[in-house]
Amino acid sequence: MSLLVKGGIVVGATGTQLADVLIEGEKIVAVLDPAYSPTVQADEVIDATGKYVIPGGIDAHTHMELPFGGTAASDTFETGTRAAAWGGTTTIIDFAVQRTGEVVQDGLAAWHAKADGNCHIDYAFHMILGGVDDDALKAMDQLVSDEGITSFKLFMAYPGVFYSDDGQILRAMQSARENGAMIMMHAENGIAIDVLVQQALARGETDPIYHGITRPAALEAEATNRAIALAEVAQDCPLYIVHLSASQALEHVAAARDQGRNVFAETCPQYLYLTLEDQLGAPGFEGAKWVCSTPLRSKHEPHAKDLWKGLRSNDLAIVSTDHCPFCMKDQKELGRGDFSKIPNGIGGVEHRVDLIYQGVVDGQISLERWVETISTTPARMFGLYPQKGVIQPGSDGDLVIYDPHGTTRISVETHHMNMDHSAYEGVEIAGRVGTVISRGSVIVADGNYHGRKGHGRYLRRGLSTYLV
Amino acid sequence: MSLLVKGGIVVGATGTQLADVLIEGEKIVAVLDPAYSPTVQADEVIDATGKYVIPGGIDAHTHMELPFGGTAASDTFETGTRAAAWGGTTTIIDFAVQRTGEVVQDGLAAWHAKADGNCHIDYAFHMILGGVDDDALKAMDQLVSDEGITSFKLFMAYPGVFYSDDGQILRAMQSARENGAMIMMHAENGIAIDVLVQQALARGETDPIYHGITRPAALEAEATNRAIALAEVAQDCPLYIVHLSASQALEHVAAARDQGRNVFAETCPQYLYLTLEDQLGAPGFEGAKWVCSTPLRSKHEPHAKDLWKGLRSNDLAIVSTDHCPFCMKDQKELGRGDFSKIPNGIGGVEHRVDLIYQGVVDGQISLERWVETISTTPARMFGLYPQKGVIQPGSDGDLVIYDPHGTTRISVETHHMNMDHSAYEGVEIAGRVGTVISRGSVIVADGNYHGRKGHGRYLRRGLSTYLV
Amino acid sequence: MSLLVKGGIVVGATGTQLADVLIEGEKIVAVLDPAYSPTVQADEVIDATGKYVIPGGIDAHTHMELPFGGTAASDTFETGTRAAAWGGTTTIIDFAVQRTGEVVQDGLAAWHAKADGNCHIDYAFHMILGGVDDDALKAMDQLVSDEGITSFKLFMAYPGVFYSDDGQILRAMQSARENGAMIMMHAENGIAIDVLVQQALARGETDPIYHGITRPAALEAEATNRAIALAEVAQDCPLYIVHLSASQALEHVAAARDQGRNVFAETCPQYLYLTLEDQLGAPGFEGAKWVCSTPLRSKHEPHAKDLWKGLRSNDLAIVSTDHCPFCMKDQKELGRGDFSKIPNGIGGVEHRVDLIYQGVVDGQISLERWVETISTTPARMFGLYPQKGVIQPGSDGDLVIYDPHGTTRISVETHHMNMDHSAYEGVEIAGRVGTVISRGSVIVADGNYHGRKGHGRYLRRGLSTYLV
Amino acid sequence: MSLLVKGGIVVGATGTQLADVLIEGEKIVAVLDPAYSPTVQADEVIDATGKYVIPGGIDAHTHMELPFGGTAASDTFETGTRAAAWGGTTTIIDFAVQRTGEVVQDGLAAWHAKADGNCHIDYAFHMILGGVDDDALKAMDQLVSDEGITSFKLFMAYPGVFYSDDGQILRAMQSARENGAMIMMHAENGIAIDVLVQQALARGETDPIYHGITRPAALEAEATNRAIALAEVAQDCPLYIVHLSASQALEHVAAARDQGRNVFAETCPQYLYLTLEDQLGAPGFEGAKWVCSTPLRSKHEPHAKDLWKGLRSNDLAIVSTDHCPFCMKDQKELGRGDFSKIPNGIGGVEHRVDLIYQGVVDGQISLERWVETISTTPARMFGLYPQKGVIQPGSDGDLVIYDPHGTTRISVETHHMNMDHSAYEGVEIAGRVGTVISRGSVIVADGNYHGRKGHGRYLRRGLSTYLV
Ligand SMILES: [Zn+2]
Ligand SMILES: [Zn+2]
Ligand SMILES: [Zn+2]
Ligand SMILES: [Zn+2]
Ligand SMILES: [Zn+2]
Ligand SMILES: [Zn+2]
Ligand SMILES: [Zn+2]
Ligand SMILES: [Zn+2]
Repeated sequence: MSLLVKGGIVVGATGTQLADVLIEGEKIVAVLDPAYSPTVQADEVIDATGKYVIPGGIDAHTHMELPFGGTAASDTFETGTRAAAWGGTTTIIDFAVQRTGEVVQDGLAAWHAKADGNCHIDYAFHMILGGVDDDALKAMDQLVSDEGITSFKLFMAYPGVFYSDDGQILRAMQSARENGAMIMMHAENGIAIDVLVQQALARGETDPIYHGITRPAALEAEATNRAIALAEVAQDCPLYIVHLSASQALEHVAAARDQGRNVFAETCPQYLYLTLEDQLGAPGFEGAKWVCSTPLRSKHEPHAKDLWKGLRSNDLAIVSTDHCPFCMKDQKELGRGDFSKIPNGIGGVEHRVDLIYQGVVDGQISLERWVETISTTPARMFGLYPQKGVIQPGSDGDLVIYDPHGTTRISVETHHMNMDHSAYEGVEIAGRVGTVISRGSVIVADGNYHGRKGHGRYLRRGLSTYLV
Repeated sequence: MSLLVKGGIVVGATGTQLADVLIEGEKIVAVLDPAYSPTVQADEVIDATGKYVIPGGIDAHTHMELPFGGTAASDTFETGTRAAAWGGTTTIIDFAVQRTGEVVQDGLAAWHAKADGNCHIDYAFHMILGGVDDDALKAMDQLVSDEGITSFKLFMAYPGVFYSDDGQILRAMQSARENGAMIMMHAENGIAIDVLVQQALARGETDPIYHGITRPAALEAEATNRAIALAEVAQDCPLYIVHLSASQALEHVAAARDQGRNVFAETCPQYLYLTLEDQLGAPGFEGAKWVCSTPLRSKHEPHAKDLWKGLRSNDLAIVSTDHCPFCMKDQKELGRGDFSKIPNGIGGVEHRVDLIYQGVVDGQISLERWVETISTTPARMFGLYPQKGVIQPGSDGDLVIYDPHGTTRISVETHHMNMDHSAYEGVEIAGRVGTVISRGSVIVADGNYHGRKGHGRYLRRGLSTYLV
Repeated sequence: MSLLVKGGIVVGATGTQLADVLIEGEKIVAVLDPAYSPTVQADEVIDATGKYVIPGGIDAHTHMELPFGGTAASDTFETGTRAAAWGGTTTIIDFAVQRTGEVVQDGLAAWHAKADGNCHIDYAFHMILGGVDDDALKAMDQLVSDEGITSFKLFMAYPGVFYSDDGQILRAMQSARENGAMIMMHAENGIAIDVLVQQALARGETDPIYHGITRPAALEAEATNRAIALAEVAQDCPLYIVHLSASQALEHVAAARDQGRNVFAETCPQYLYLTLEDQLGAPGFEGAKWVCSTPLRSKHEPHAKDLWKGLRSNDLAIVSTDHCPFCMKDQKELGRGDFSKIPNGIGGVEHRVDLIYQGVVDGQISLERWVETISTTPARMFGLYPQKGVIQPGSDGDLVIYDPHGTTRISVETHHMNMDHSAYEGVEIAGRVGTVISRGSVIVADGNYHGRKGHGRYLRRGLSTYLV
Repeated sequence: MSLLVKGGIVVGATGTQLADVLIEGEKIVAVLDPAYSPTVQADEVIDATGKYVIPGGIDAHTHMELPFGGTAASDTFETGTRAAAWGGTTTIIDFAVQRTGEVVQDGLAAWHAKADGNCHIDYAFHMILGGVDDDALKAMDQLVSDEGITSFKLFMAYPGVFYSDDGQILRAMQSARENGAMIMMHAENGIAIDVLVQQALARGETDPIYHGITRPAALEAEATNRAIALAEVAQDCPLYIVHLSASQALEHVAAARDQGRNVFAETCPQYLYLTLEDQLGAPGFEGAKWVCSTPLRSKHEPHAKDLWKGLRSNDLAIVSTDHCPFCMKDQKELGRGDFSKIPNGIGGVEHRVDLIYQGVVDGQISLERWVETISTTPARMFGLYPQKGVIQPGSDGDLVIYDPHGTTRISVETHHMNMDHSAYEGVEIAGRVGTVISRGSVIVADGNYHGRKGHGRYLRRGLSTYLV
């Protein structure tokens, strides 16, 4: 079975070209000059004239079915990957979880059990280490060598839940320096934050906005700097800061990168578009929809502007979603009267490709950076390249045909995520996902869904090829 | 006539792949999965198994036949482009010159006259503006729209020769902001340097090393910052700092880039490998070989280390050579007894690809950055992409098959530049240029030269596609 | 004749104390424990109970009778020093001027002629060098050794009038490094500014606000950095940036100071209180009152906040006025229809002590910093210490008894400067100058003036004792 | 009883003057013009002609009799304050200790018991909080209001001993922000250090130099930044970093100070003169003499140069000694074969005034900065001003008459500290402590000791008057 995508504008990380893409079975086998490709035979031909042809989106930060605060993220691997596909994302990297006291491999097995046979698109796992000890460090080596898991997330926040102290972090970084893995860091000073949270609650400040106020940018910046320092002590262990939201944290990342170090960061669409005041501070309990950590930042400070700047300068390498959806009903509502009990998370796996394309339309980033930050760099950063993230022979046939003349309107009425609200309700975007192809199969076309549960395969990842 | 390069490891800016490259006539028409390409017919097949296949090198900074200090650079377009080809460079961008008082277009015509019919590889021109006035600004618009010249170099050094004052610079930047051109800057405070030079000569300090001592890093850094400030006043006009050599100058570039601005810089191999003390300070008049501006920097300071760091972080986007060769005999000798009369320049167009590959071997940069800094980014930066700088269908058939198992030894005995010495005499490098293909023609193979004068064509460039 | 100031709170740069001050003739001869001083006899006793006793204010930057743009500053040495006295300033350092082409000593002689016998308070001179050449550099040495003039101001702005190029600046700095003088710098890139001015006028932008818009902060910051770099090349010649107004310029000063260098800066009250929009942008031609260079900055940027911060951190060492008054009638009016013809300057010599005391009341700076920035540091910086700037035996009997419970209202109706308007019309300040004593003579007391023209003496200054 | 110090050069923080100082009983009652003072009667006259008269030194960081690692610092309050007196220090501020689990006031009482009646010079206490909880925070308020203790030290190092976590630190800072106290911080990431220490010991790296190697500068810098961030979250609580030793930590302090914040730091003579390689790395177990935390830093890095720079720029406000002496015999020897068991500390209370005067001789700092960093600023910083730290009427009669023409040679043979070695053995210094006067009593004169145990009194301190 062969498929020829003809006449499109292929967009890659370094530029655009008019080229045809030939897929045989699940793989791209040729990229062709349109003037040359008429001689090529294909079973099926898709006309992409006037449209962008990009490698399928890779969302490097999702949390399907994540248990949190007595409930679990509302998207299963089935619903979540289907929504991702609708939005032009053909690969997710989800976070398998080792809870404190649990055997790492057991945590991984549980995640495989959730995902196996349920995914609409390809998937891989990072591993969250909830407790760094000798056993966990040995397990880390084993996951890198045998399981295709080459990135490990630690938390400087959530004491008593996921929190690692600086000694544990240092040890994990030293191990990563040896086995080649990437350390991913949730960088917020959770010990100090917990003091602020308790003080706020004691003062009766229980509304959702206090979730943001008790997690000040200074404590994200502090933890970011600390993680960078610990990675330096660990002989420049590769470090990836997740969900960076604050200007001050970005400054620390930029300083490390100016030193030529292997320090990287991602941001998420919510930090580019939504704010402490307008969303988290919505009247009544409405703000609960936007309770996530790191929190939305103040519109009176230049965070969003700086984050776009960071995306231009590559001080921010990747846009992920940190997709972690909770419904208002029965879930977010657990925190009525106590913001600290609101499950943390925003759902957005379906909208990332569109929301960042809007940055191209707005002149914030170039077309090339759009593709690079949503697909090519995630693949390189997390050991999926060149199987994913690029349109070239030998790569998987994961393509999105994106229509720059279309428009997208986001709403709970039309989205496919398992949520009873949308974080971006009513937002309109210039540009629209047209056709989505996953390993050679058309799964979205003309507004119809052709994918299926179980099509998605687990991806064993190699080491990062993005290191400097 | 078709040519298939088979079995090689294609290296691009984002990674490597095993792929075959099919060229028809002068153009790449397909990049193919090796498993698929056996079905492809080609008139000639080159086996690249175990070798790197990279886009031909682009040297964005050369000065063939440049008149300077009463003599002229010793490489003609013929000898210089032939030497470039030997070294894996298939495109140069040379600097056409408008002298003060001259009509810009006349300067350009003179450069076309020198190059036309003489080049072994493709070439383009930047334009040096030796005098910014109303006429020159109009000419600038015309060159951008009609002549394929989209970058203009100004000098903050060389008062009375190429120097522009800050008002002229600002006006040129404002025009560039309008017409889309890139401003390239020789950033040294020449007014202050001239005072230091006169004082040194008056003290009898006439040896070549005083060329370096009278051009301190602080004055390169100052001018770099000034250029960046003027570009800011000109509404963020794109700015490209040439031959950056000093840590302090790099810091200013990094700071501007951290702000997400369109500020770029190149460095040259001489600043990565050679030093004030060891080369410029060689006994007697020997140091004259290494008189260039900006000068070689002190080995007691971390300049070279920082420049490699900048290449990693992309604060330095490009490696060019600033190839400007002068023989010792009759040329460099003009400055015996007065360093200020030594023609400024080092020849190196033949060695850039090898010298930067050595950085890969030494662990300074990745394989991807090698290709990006010597080919892909120069093409993007200066409006040659995707015709040049990338291996993809539609691009010119400019390829280098590079042997990572070969070795290169640099010497005046073996080089092809028209120089009576080598700036890198005796240097040995792991890696070797094997086959060089220019627009589908093999011009170097197995140590033999198959190119010819006149094969190289003038390239009309578009605007930069590298802007953020 | 002896005078005892009893019971006051003596405020110095390091703290406060309850102490009595005994003056014999023109000099302080003792500072005494109030419990001990009853045994002291004095001809006259002033009760300062509940009031601050501070060393007389020193305004290190005034321009009495300065010719500018076809007119001259409206305060003579007589009127200006009388107004200064009213406001608690007992010493000024005015700028003598060498015009381009003029012999430096002739310029100095002219200034002595203006001031001699006319001043109400003591005065000293800096020297403006309008043309740095061999003769001027020799004159510089002579002024330092013979004339008590140890600071020299250069201009990076005003091409064709006061402008020095970077070579001239470097040479003057090298001389200063030898003879120990301080280089003072008007740091604005005048060459670039002149382009912006001509372009604005050509577009018909002639209102006063365009004076500010054509002098962007980026060009003050650039020049500041350049001056700092040139001083570094001149072996760390002491450098003093005058009338610093922009956050970005302050950053460069702070960076140099963090390096432990002899780089200093002053700001002026107008930059702490007045803005581009509210004053310079006043309707019609009203804004002309506030045309000064560097210009007032935008209230939408954090300049004023940052300047107060700089005063706290000592990145700004001194508050001077840059007193250069012009009346609206016949003077500012010269620039109706062409902002570039408006004489540059604001009058404020009378209000500095009060305006900065307001910063104490507002919590911006401490009481100690008030005294330090308006008196002690100016004395140390410019070689007047310990004759001036401190209350200790051997120092001149220059005291201000300041009433923290008084209030001051600024208005053209009540001020003593020779101006037909006030830059601070209607401003009310908590605090009030009570008694002013100059070299042992009470010149202001209880709202009455007791001083006289001719009382003020020329002060030969030594070298700065503020260097690190 | 009156004492007149005649003819000396009085040196203060802002400059020098020729003045006589009259002491009546324990207090300075007058500072006098030498031409005026002949009329003054005094019981005793000391001729200080040609000598510097400075306020008595204040060592703001000592640990007399501190229990540590199973032993105790070898100087008692008696021997230590006597040695201090010999070296020109007339006030110490020692650290009273609350151990974890102990009532704060009990810890203070224990310290009073040690010091009471035993001190040769005046003394005050900071309080170390070994455990921040509700009781300790209440005690903190009480000590500020009732006990004259206005500064509290916390440790980011020494887990299980003195360590506070970030939540405890934040709470203490919030309390300090309310009650006006200063938080002092031992800034090293002790959690990470402990990992490095255990790893080093496991590798058999037991020599004293590994004490330094396992406490890298990056972890001092990290903790310094963290403390600054926490103080920011605590509404800009005043923060004082003790024993700053690393360039990278200084950069964080400088950055905070450039923001105008109440962040201060001290360094110690050992970091200005001694190094990791030359002292801590001495052959065999010799290096144990120089085991202190923060550790001595590498001579191959610019730490010492940067610290002197910081003393010039006031990014380092104070020089203290962190005097914490342990003999080799029976004390340092506890760590033979395990560097982690070597008691941490260097003795130097006797040599600070001389060692920093050497910086004046070497051109590192000015005479004024010498006095400011060793006396005036400590007094202002810690609420002893104007009783201490300045020569003015009303202040205590604490004076040192310092002979710039003398010399000092440091040796265990001649020092007065209770140590069996000297950290500065054989060092020679230009300058010599001559006469030392404490509250009007001559305690050192002409190489003879006239002081006595019990002369020194406990000083209740006020709040810092150094805040910006
Ligand atoms: Zn997280
Ligand atoms: Zn997450
Ligand atoms: Zn950067
Ligand atoms: Zn060049
Ligand atoms: Zn000026
Ligand atoms: Zn600073
Ligand atoms: Zn002025
Ligand atoms: Zn200590």
